[in-house]
Amino acid sequence: MTTVGVGVIGAGVMGAEHARLLASEVSGARLVAVADADLSRARAAAGGAMATTDAEALIAAADVEAVLIASPDATHHRLVLAAIAAGKPVLCEKPLASNTAECLEIVAAEARAGRELVQTGFMRRFDPAYREMKAALDGGELGRVRILHCQHRNAAAPAWFTGAMAVTNSLVHEIDICRWLLSTEYSAVTVIPCPSEEGGMSDPALFVFETETGSLVSVEVFMNAAYGYHVHAEAACANGTVSMAHQGLTRTRLNGAEAGYFPLNWIPRFRDAYRIQNQAWIDGIRSGVLPADRSTAWDGLVATCLAEQIVEALATRQRTRLELPARPV
Amino acid sequence: MTTVGVGVIGAGVMGAEHARLLASEVSGARLVAVADADLSRARAAAGGAMATTDAEALIAAADVEAVLIASPDATHHRLVLAAIAAGKPVLCEKPLASNTAECLEIVAAEARAGRELVQTGFMRRFDPAYREMKAALDGGELGRVRILHCQHRNAAAPAWFTGAMAVTNSLVHEIDICRWLLSTEYSAVTVIPCPSEEGGMSDPALFVFETETGSLVSVEVFMNAAYGYHVHAEAACANGTVSMAHQGLTRTRLNGAEAGYFPLNWIPRFRDAYRIQNQAWIDGIRSGVLPADRSTAWDGLVATCLAEQIVEALATRQRTRLELPARPV
Amino acid sequence: MTTVGVGVIGAGVMGAEHARLLASEVSGARLVAVADADLSRARAAAGGAMATTDAEALIAAADVEAVLIASPDATHHRLVLAAIAAGKPVLCEKPLASNTAECLEIVAAEARAGRELVQTGFMRRFDPAYREMKAALDGGELGRVRILHCQHRNAAAPAWFTGAMAVTNSLVHEIDICRWLLSTEYSAVTVIPCPSEEGGMSDPALFVFETETGSLVSVEVFMNAAYGYHVHAEAACANGTVSMAHQGLTRTRLNGAEAGYFPLNWIPRFRDAYRIQNQAWIDGIRSGVLPADRSTAWDGLVATCLAEQIVEALATRQRTRLELPARPV
Amino acid sequence: MTTVGVGVIGAGVMGAEHARLLASEVSGARLVAVADADLSRARAAAGGAMATTDAEALIAAADVEAVLIASPDATHHRLVLAAIAAGKPVLCEKPLASNTAECLEIVAAEARAGRELVQTGFMRRFDPAYREMKAALDGGELGRVRILHCQHRNAAAPAWFTGAMAVTNSLVHEIDICRWLLSTEYSAVTVIPCPSEEGGMSDPALFVFETETGSLVSVEVFMNAAYGYHVHAEAACANGTVSMAHQGLTRTRLNGAEAGYFPLNWIPRFRDAYRIQNQAWIDGIRSGVLPADRSTAWDGLVATCLAEQIVEALATRQRTRLELPARPV
Repeated sequence: MTTVGVGVIGAGVMGAEHARLLASEVSGARLVAVADADLSRARAAAGGAMATTDAEALIAAADVEAVLIASPDATHHRLVLAAIAAGKPVLCEKPLASNTAECLEIVAAEARAGRELVQTGFMRRFDPAYREMKAALDGGELGRVRILHCQHRNAAAPAWFTGAMAVTNSLVHEIDICRWLLSTEYSAVTVIPCPSEEGGMSDPALFVFETETGSLVSVEVFMNAAYGYHVHAEAACANGTVSMAHQGLTRTRLNGAEAGYFPLNWIPRFRDAYRIQNQAWIDGIRSGVLPADRSTAWDGLVATCLAEQIVEALATRQRTRLELPARPV
Repeated sequence: MTTVGVGVIGAGVMGAEHARLLASEVSGARLVAVADADLSRARAAAGGAMATTDAEALIAAADVEAVLIASPDATHHRLVLAAIAAGKPVLCEKPLASNTAECLEIVAAEARAGRELVQTGFMRRFDPAYREMKAALDGGELGRVRILHCQHRNAAAPAWFTGAMAVTNSLVHEIDICRWLLSTEYSAVTVIPCPSEEGGMSDPALFVFETETGSLVSVEVFMNAAYGYHVHAEAACANGTVSMAHQGLTRTRLNGAEAGYFPLNWIPRFRDAYRIQNQAWIDGIRSGVLPADRSTAWDGLVATCLAEQIVEALATRQRTRLELPARPV
Repeated sequence: MTTVGVGVIGAGVMGAEHARLLASEVSGARLVAVADADLSRARAAAGGAMATTDAEALIAAADVEAVLIASPDATHHRLVLAAIAAGKPVLCEKPLASNTAECLEIVAAEARAGRELVQTGFMRRFDPAYREMKAALDGGELGRVRILHCQHRNAAAPAWFTGAMAVTNSLVHEIDICRWLLSTEYSAVTVIPCPSEEGGMSDPALFVFETETGSLVSVEVFMNAAYGYHVHAEAACANGTVSMAHQGLTRTRLNGAEAGYFPLNWIPRFRDAYRIQNQAWIDGIRSGVLPADRSTAWDGLVATCLAEQIVEALATRQRTRLELPARPV
Repeated sequence: MTTVGVGVIGAGVMGAEHARLLASEVSGARLVAVADADLSRARAAAGGAMATTDAEALIAAADVEAVLIASPDATHHRLVLAAIAAGKPVLCEKPLASNTAECLEIVAAEARAGRELVQTGFMRRFDPAYREMKAALDGGELGRVRILHCQHRNAAAPAWFTGAMAVTNSLVHEIDICRWLLSTEYSAVTVIPCPSEEGGMSDPALFVFETETGSLVSVEVFMNAAYGYHVHAEAACANGTVSMAHQGLTRTRLNGAEAGYFPLNWIPRFRDAYRIQNQAWIDGIRSGVLPADRSTAWDGLVATCLAEQIVEALATRQRTRLELPARPV
């Protein structure tokens, strides 16, 4: 296979960005089709490639050799199953599906297909800063992780945002990346929300996980942190720590201050992660050797399944044991 | 009063440092006496001043106009009461006393004396970095504090150290400084210890406080953090954050790395805080205007009283409401 | 044109890296051939593509649509001319040619070809950190640059390295990037070498340029800086400064220090710059719109021509006026 | 001697600050008198101490045991000589005197007095950051200094400021501190001014010194750097570097940026240096052991003498050999 023909489903902000990456920055990929309910949006993202409103037709098209799903969350389950049925590799933006049952269906369908076809789009695993952290942790010099502190901060959330949405939209990334960083599963969580102001959501909230390997993971999710988009992590280990540096490449001195800047949202922060994820996905398809750090369908299930349990814990505020279903074999 | 004659009780590491500061770096103070159970140690710390093994005699001595207590914790209660009885200003290293009942006796004795005589040695309130943080928080531009993250890390604790000791020795500083930073009291705490390795203490432990003003305070106490002595705080507010910078004055590039250094223990980190605290104490005695940010006897009681309750919460691991006794009027 | 077939000449460290980038990280490129005097080295870099010892044959090959030259410096002049003669786009590692006369021949040959075919491999123009600096400078808020301070530090130079080599190998990058950053030409240079130790080369040396727009550019070139490979720049402007941040993505605390790491050589530092440069080169060939920030043949000439004059100034240590030949039209 | 009675001459910004330090932050000192041509200003600085317009009377007063001179530069020579004649220790703000001849008179007078009485107020030698740098350099691990880069930046200079004033007011501090940091003398200087805009002074200017021990020292003096008051130094040595960190104790994140702040002028930056200098001066007087790092009368002469030669070099723009007079024995 010289290059891989890819069809992108969804031409919103993320879908259009994926189409752009596949067309112009990923080696070995060809953008061959874009589907969106809004045909003009599909056309804009497609450049010269085929544009359609019919996602199933895109999956079925002969020159679509692999599928990238960035359509609304509720459609993921159906479209991933369609791609599996067509025997085509599929990279699905998180969440893999809307609930655990749907995720289990996907995991089972893939198992029946006899071939790993699904990658979940937890792109942070390909972010150079997270990879540098993981390399340091796996290198051994720092010793066993004792506590991992994470901050997930958005500049502002819409007025209608809820605490449950903060879990399923934002915390879900932390759920995936921290178990990947620590190579472990969570055994329990304690949720401590910051009281709301004037009837709004509890924001920030602190989630403290215990892991099967005896570490703690504290995650602050702050949807209205105001100053910018900022994702931070620090692992305190037996011998020392490793943390994410400010990711700005330059510093400016102006008006009495030395400053490094934050982006307004996640796209500039993770642009390279998306590119590298997509390159690794294409490389895996071409070579038959899947990327070592991919988020699988099972990883997608774990994230959705734990998010469900944590949303419940938001209400009870009790320390809650976290459970996973039996993994299909 | 031109200068204040000070007697120092206790000539261990901290007592000797206090004696040195009063003799050579605090304006308006004269070191007139040092008491220690070990007379040679008292003499070494006293320079040319009087040395004695009799703490009560020191308190009674005519040229001792103010008393600084840095003797073993169990003696604080008795010696502070003696200083109050003698009508002499007293600066007592933390803890003010070993339990809430003893602290209450001190608060009551001071009230009966009709004059504020007691300052508790929570020196962080005079640390320039903490003061810069508080000024930023009080300045208003950052908005209301939503969550304050603190790390208290020691390089290593003795083998016999326990989780309760981590609370009464280390967390107690955080208890005082965070309520000072936020100008509030705590309403509840949740304790989440990191499982112990090979039968040692749970280390680190995470303590999450809720405050009366609706903020969260998360404190990691890590007694065996290995890399150095490191105290850190970051306040995430409605509009932005303020945090402590690395306190090193220089950076070194050597052997493939750019590095800033940590001290091995608290003394280099807080040397300036001790000096400024002691200067403010002496200035208050000379001018009759007590330092605005002093930790009072009541503040000393609050720290001891909350530490007692948190030690109990260590065992139950339940979210625990925190209570204070009625304040004598 | 769907993809561009590229032939790489030279399979040393840089040539092999270019071949790898074109084969696996640059969208729209196909690696079709690698030439090297050492056939086994060519084969290793070629993967499955054609390997040859005949660079001219590679340039002539029908499926070679564009040529990347990373062979020894002395061969650049001949091979670039051959690519121009063949009417094929060519990206040539610096230096464009060994002296000004040879560079002028290339510039003239390209002019006669009636089409811009040559790009000089000054990859720093595509480095994200330098681009962020230039964007800040061009943004206007900082005002006019008054002095640009640069440090070019290698961990170690071979024992036979000379001051002249430091100019032609290292300073030449600064010559190009600083005139690009400031959008100006140099009018004069003052060279101040640090006295040699025990008969070695003068190292570091300080080169202070004056520009036609009234700025200063100070460049330290330190070939034996020991601690790592480090390239730094800070522009002090009328209203403020912009400088390069430490490029490490993480920080580690270990053994009493908080550290960020340096690479040992330029390849990790500029890996992304090479990829982005090559992507921009391929995009330009495919689209017919050349990359705005490319280093042209004339830019290659300027760097070589100024380096020649600065090597002479090393000996005289006089302030030296810098001159460029008339630009062929 | 229990405490030292100090008279301060000059009650402008610096004189008032010195009076405040001696009265309230320096152990072992008593502020006994302040002289200023403006009596009300003297009174304000004196607190309850004697205020006078007669500087000579202050020097002669019986309870003035030591003299601190912070009056206008032109008066330093006369007043230092008066203090020497009175046999009283004197700490004189820089410059020691207006020209080399006057400095030589002071050095000779002190030599005749048979006792070291004069300290020049180059307070940076007592700045904790500079001391940490010097300790790193003297520690040996970094190896021999090859090049020391310094930036001296003021937010803004008055319109009537000249390049010569930049040398005698600002560069003079760098002259002193760099020879102290490197424990050497300068052998030559090359001055490269940045062309002036619209008829103003050349600003910034770059001064490159060669030292007797074979190092280079490059100093940027930028009087209108706009963003704040900022003094920076980085020593690049045979094995690595040491540089000054940003001196802010906290960092703030607000409005899309993470920021550390600069002061508007030198006073907040060097407040601690002044206090420590004055404490060391008083300690030396009390103990008879002069502070190891003091700037002597000879150091004051060196600074003035070199500044004179550099002002001349500003005009010629030639590399200029720097010479010192024979040191009186």
